[in-house]
Amino acid sequence: MQHFLTTETWSKPNLQKILDFAKDLKQSPIQPLLKNKSIALLFFNPSLRTRTSFEIGIEQLGGHAVVLQPGKDAWPIEFELGSVMDGEAEEHVKEVAQVLSSYCDLIAIRAFPKFVDWQKDKLDTLLNSFAQYASVPVINMETITHPCQELAHIMTLQEKLGDLQGKKYLLTWTYHPKPLNTAVANSALMIASKFGMDVTLLCPTEEYVLDEHYMQSARSNCSQNNQNLTVTHNIEEAYSGAEIVYAKSWGALPYFGQWEKEKLIRDQYKHFIVDEKKMAMTNQGLFSHCLPLRRNVKATDAVMDSEYCVAIQEAENRLHVQKSLMNFLANQHSS
Amino acid sequence: MQHFLTTETWSKPNLQKILDFAKDLKQSPIQPLLKNKSIALLFFNPSLRTRTSFEIGIEQLGGHAVVLQPGKDAWPIEFELGSVMDGEAEEHVKEVAQVLSSYCDLIAIRAFPKFVDWQKDKLDTLLNSFAQYASVPVINMETITHPCQELAHIMTLQEKLGDLQGKKYLLTWTYHPKPLNTAVANSALMIASKFGMDVTLLCPTEEYVLDEHYMQSARSNCSQNNQNLTVTHNIEEAYSGAEIVYAKSWGALPYFGQWEKEKLIRDQYKHFIVDEKKMAMTNQGLFSHCLPLRRNVKATDAVMDSEYCVAIQEAENRLHVQKSLMNFLANQHSS
Amino acid sequence: MQHFLTTETWSKPNLQKILDFAKDLKQSPIQPLLKNKSIALLFFNPSLRTRTSFEIGIEQLGGHAVVLQPGKDAWPIEFELGSVMDGEAEEHVKEVAQVLSSYCDLIAIRAFPKFVDWQKDKLDTLLNSFAQYASVPVINMETITHPCQELAHIMTLQEKLGDLQGKKYLLTWTYHPKPLNTAVANSALMIASKFGMDVTLLCPTEEYVLDEHYMQSARSNCSQNNQNLTVTHNIEEAYSGAEIVYAKSWGALPYFGQWEKEKLIRDQYKHFIVDEKKMAMTNQGLFSHCLPLRRNVKATDAVMDSEYCVAIQEAENRLHVQKSLMNFLANQHSS
Repeated sequence: MQHFLTTETWSKPNLQKILDFAKDLKQSPIQPLLKNKSIALLFFNPSLRTRTSFEIGIEQLGGHAVVLQPGKDAWPIEFELGSVMDGEAEEHVKEVAQVLSSYCDLIAIRAFPKFVDWQKDKLDTLLNSFAQYASVPVINMETITHPCQELAHIMTLQEKLGDLQGKKYLLTWTYHPKPLNTAVANSALMIASKFGMDVTLLCPTEEYVLDEHYMQSARSNCSQNNQNLTVTHNIEEAYSGAEIVYAKSWGALPYFGQWEKEKLIRDQYKHFIVDEKKMAMTNQGLFSHCLPLRRNVKATDAVMDSEYCVAIQEAENRLHVQKSLMNFLANQHSS
Repeated sequence: MQHFLTTETWSKPNLQKILDFAKDLKQSPIQPLLKNKSIALLFFNPSLRTRTSFEIGIEQLGGHAVVLQPGKDAWPIEFELGSVMDGEAEEHVKEVAQVLSSYCDLIAIRAFPKFVDWQKDKLDTLLNSFAQYASVPVINMETITHPCQELAHIMTLQEKLGDLQGKKYLLTWTYHPKPLNTAVANSALMIASKFGMDVTLLCPTEEYVLDEHYMQSARSNCSQNNQNLTVTHNIEEAYSGAEIVYAKSWGALPYFGQWEKEKLIRDQYKHFIVDEKKMAMTNQGLFSHCLPLRRNVKATDAVMDSEYCVAIQEAENRLHVQKSLMNFLANQHSS
Repeated sequence: MQHFLTTETWSKPNLQKILDFAKDLKQSPIQPLLKNKSIALLFFNPSLRTRTSFEIGIEQLGGHAVVLQPGKDAWPIEFELGSVMDGEAEEHVKEVAQVLSSYCDLIAIRAFPKFVDWQKDKLDTLLNSFAQYASVPVINMETITHPCQELAHIMTLQEKLGDLQGKKYLLTWTYHPKPLNTAVANSALMIASKFGMDVTLLCPTEEYVLDEHYMQSARSNCSQNNQNLTVTHNIEEAYSGAEIVYAKSWGALPYFGQWEKEKLIRDQYKHFIVDEKKMAMTNQGLFSHCLPLRRNVKATDAVMDSEYCVAIQEAENRLHVQKSLMNFLANQHSS
């Protein structure tokens, strides 16, 4: 049984299979592939696109989604093995995962980091615990990576540009008033490099470079595809000739949990906003972002409303790739 | 593409079409008219009837509803154009509306006024913004008017009284411990006058008269139907001969945002409660209310439990009119 | 019309009918028995298993569940008759029950006691009010008893042990840091005795004996089945020869509402935890619990992970018995 926890453990051909069938589903959205099947959507953090696209997606395939918000309208959950549960948690993930597996055919989970200790957050304990104890496939709806977004991102780029091999891809950090999750940035590096692009990471300082695990993964992918992973803090250099600009904000890992300190640094880099002047330096580059996006903070109105902005198309493609993914996972034993 | 934001811009024949088909759906509730279609229900405020009736309604027509509560289990949303989004809002309505349009066939919105500045609230910015950016029809589930309630109200009156032309219709203000939204009252005036009734508005003082926009709209409807719009503060005069009594509480607009002051006035008019003595003055009048209703504050138990109370029937009719409306809007291009 | 408020008013043969059809549904889960029907699930308290199993259950039978959380995403509700509703509640149960009855085919309710005054809580006013005013069957999803859990419990024991007549059944109190509801314990006594088992209640002191109403009900059931209801505070005596051990924690009724006092007593009995040593005293006893369970507080990891633990199976059976129950109630008039 295969989970979808991170694209790192998935081969490019298997991901391409999901992407190809997503194109098919975009043309013929109503197919009874998950007739009478169900998925539990566990949201430990809020969601609009993810929830709507998963819920409508499975309905269009004949199934049903149950939306659960543990700690809000369900019980808080324990994830450590062997612990004496005399704190807040009323239930262990072992039971939750087994019981949900007996009701549902798939379990999908959104659980952001706790933003206190990156060494703990990077273990992705919650997601991995569900995967360990569930007897049905588990899908990552964003934890410390966001693999569903990766699929939608690549599908959109393929729709626009065809084969992505050798394309100049820029992931740019942008400002945001809060220190955000690195998940989408980690994901962007991994998937862009896996699909053969020439990848540049633009960020204000060394401190904003992503976790070495993802840097190494991207470096290794690039090398296998005869491409480079470049890190730069120079805006002009980064944008020059870029064919894709993907924007995301995140908090600097060395200050993880000490966000007041980090804010003093972050506040100096508001000019990393994606604007028309920067986009003019690209090679007729596309712009995208995973949404939600703060207009005129991460990107200007002009960029968001431009013809080269594909953020809405990417958001729509979430629906199609997730339907394809659910079909792939839920029917993996029967095919 | 037609939205359903307010009945003001809808002709009586088109509204009657929706009402007529609602009667049909009341007889034959299961019809696959919205097979595989979906509606996003956005609740910025709580709901019981509206949510249940929309959700079950679309299921009975073969479709599916996704319930979203922005700011609660989804992101807070920005509505101003051009703003630098460095506050609480994580996302602009422009993106939300476009993305939801790519997932769903209809978008329905409940968003009460903020009760601070009526000049701002009366712009109905949130609803109008969604309508502006969405590429699918948008339905008002109560903002500063409540057009779905209007449909259910008229359907119920037509079931009981047949043609409504010339019927004596009383909208009476009642007491409530909190200053409530004028939406249902605005709606009552507009729809009663549009359907040709002789309309009286009973309220404690001049200060409780509704916004001039709705007064003018009702006056104009009445005049087109050779009827009158009467405002009175005299209970006996208002109830005498009424054939329909519709009750609602609302806060006085001149004190909008200064509710402590308004409360001193409002507290003097608890005797506006609808009771059997008042109903005895009517011409065998029907009583209704949009619900929720505080018993023995807005109307007595005796009135609520009487044979002439049609509030439950009106609530049930929400289901039928909304199904008819969704069908009308979602299938407007295909018919 | 029959409600499902407590098993006390249901005959064993009728309960067995529901259990038998549940076994059928476990084999053939997809049957269009509730095609286009709907159930309103009202949660006044959080839920994971109950909500998921009801929601997926009705979908598998062709129907739809609407999940409502009054006071959270719907209005707070009044339950007293004749009260002047000038407090928090915006709506009376009479209207809520009637309106939901006009939208749905079934209404299910979870409403835990308020834990202040047992004399009030034991009236189960909320549930009984809905049953009084609803015109569709009402299901108890846990108030002061938990009859759906009872069905799942008995189904599981019958799957494991066949006929339950004369089986030695132990309900043991266990420690929990909070004073919990007696519902599942009340239910366990009533259903174990109704199905002919020899029932022992193990609790730390006289003060932890359950409400006399349920004790009397169990005593009477036992006597009809030529069995005994035994109360003991001796752990060894209780476990010796037991064939079923069902664990649950609850607060002592004499201290109801004075939980700080009760905690001093409760804290002395942490050794009531179900562990391997205790289970070794049984007659190859099965262990179960209704979940959620705090590991290493109520039962050890070793017990929870043992082969004789049937808690997960019991949780799964919730799905099957509830589907059977919904079918029984919703189709009672048509068969």
